[in-house]
Amino acid sequence: MPSNVFDELIDEIRSFAQARDWEKFHTPKNLSMAVAGEAGELAAEFQWLTAEESSLEGLTDAQLQAIKLEIADVQIYLLRLADVLKVDVPGVVREKLGINETRF
Amino acid sequence: MPSNVFDELIDEIRSFAQARDWEKFHTPKNLSMAVAGEAGELAAEFQWLTAEESSLEGLTDAQLQAIKLEIADVQIYLLRLADVLKVDVPGVVREKLGINETRF
Amino acid sequence: MPSNVFDELIDEIRSFAQARDWEKFHTPKNLSMAVAGEAGELAAEFQWLTAEESSLEGLTDAQLQAIKLEIADVQIYLLRLADVLKVDVPGVVREKLGINETRF
Amino acid sequence: MPSNVFDELIDEIRSFAQARDWEKFHTPKNLSMAVAGEAGELAAEFQWLTAEESSLEGLTDAQLQAIKLEIADVQIYLLRLADVLKVDVPGVVREKLGINETRF
Repeated sequence: MPSNVFDELIDEIRSFAQARDWEKFHTPKNLSMAVAGEAGELAAEFQWLTAEESSLEGLTDAQLQAIKLEIADVQIYLLRLADVLKVDVPGVVREKLGINETRF
Repeated sequence: MPSNVFDELIDEIRSFAQARDWEKFHTPKNLSMAVAGEAGELAAEFQWLTAEESSLEGLTDAQLQAIKLEIADVQIYLLRLADVLKVDVPGVVREKLGINETRF
Repeated sequence: MPSNVFDELIDEIRSFAQARDWEKFHTPKNLSMAVAGEAGELAAEFQWLTAEESSLEGLTDAQLQAIKLEIADVQIYLLRLADVLKVDVPGVVREKLGINETRF
Repeated sequence: MPSNVFDELIDEIRSFAQARDWEKFHTPKNLSMAVAGEAGELAAEFQWLTAEESSLEGLTDAQLQAIKLEIADVQIYLLRLADVLKVDVPGVVREKLGINETRF
């Protein structure tokens, strides 16, 4: 049975938190703040760039690497939040895309 | 061969954008703003709740449903950004977890 | 003696919260989330606009009015946070500008 | 005639930007991203603290100093944005409080 990459990553992130005894900090409220904080850092990578400079062709290797790691940070806390709240991420993404289909 | 759920979702989100001729708006800069905006909305769901009220046991069904859809919105724009910048999300998540292993 | 507009606004915002018995919700942690949430909404007003469209000349009256009210929301929660933590906002702004003078 | 502290700070922040030839970066769109980025950093100061730890009595001097400087950063970019869009901040704060009076 093929495993779902989302579930694999969620397990790896949970193990990382458990090994450091961080689960007590990982309330949904706190994790939502961590997602917002990391999203702010991701946006900060782009804030002084023009649209062109922000493109794959316009970014330097160093800029792209920094952006990738910020994308990872947002994803890690979003998956940790989904884990704690038992949210099926691919499921809700498809549910939301379906809602958007009817709105737009 | 099992397909990667991340890749499947990225394809579905790209098709949604293409069908509406939204690709011209989807610069990395703009998408990073959308991630930050949705992350702010996700945090706003939790802002007046106590730690206990924010837990899976403490949330009402209506609150949990609203939170799920906000998680979906952050995830959708994060995957769209990863698509435009050709970022392998599971790969960078594991790269970042490896970096964090050495830091903490 | 001229009063400080910051202090006047802080008093008005505190009175508004007290009249609704909202002080119990206004922990510094919660207020920092409210600032982030409103800042996300402010950024969302600009996310699909080009640099030119985001300028004073490029915005429609309706867009500018929406942006003004989002600026107000960020400012209200920032002043409420400053009130609760007894932060002298003009003082720390000048302190930070002084630090920035030596950095840039 | 007493000057308005908001106007004084706006002038000081504009001079700082002009002296470094940064005005070309200060589009409203970019400044809204900077506000969101700094608001994310402000929230990050609080993300692992309990409500009690986030209070004036619970914070260490070092934590409070870091928070003050993050409040300053949000305020600086918010005033710079208000300057570029010619927004009267005290005026819109009072306008929004008036709107909120009728809503709550």
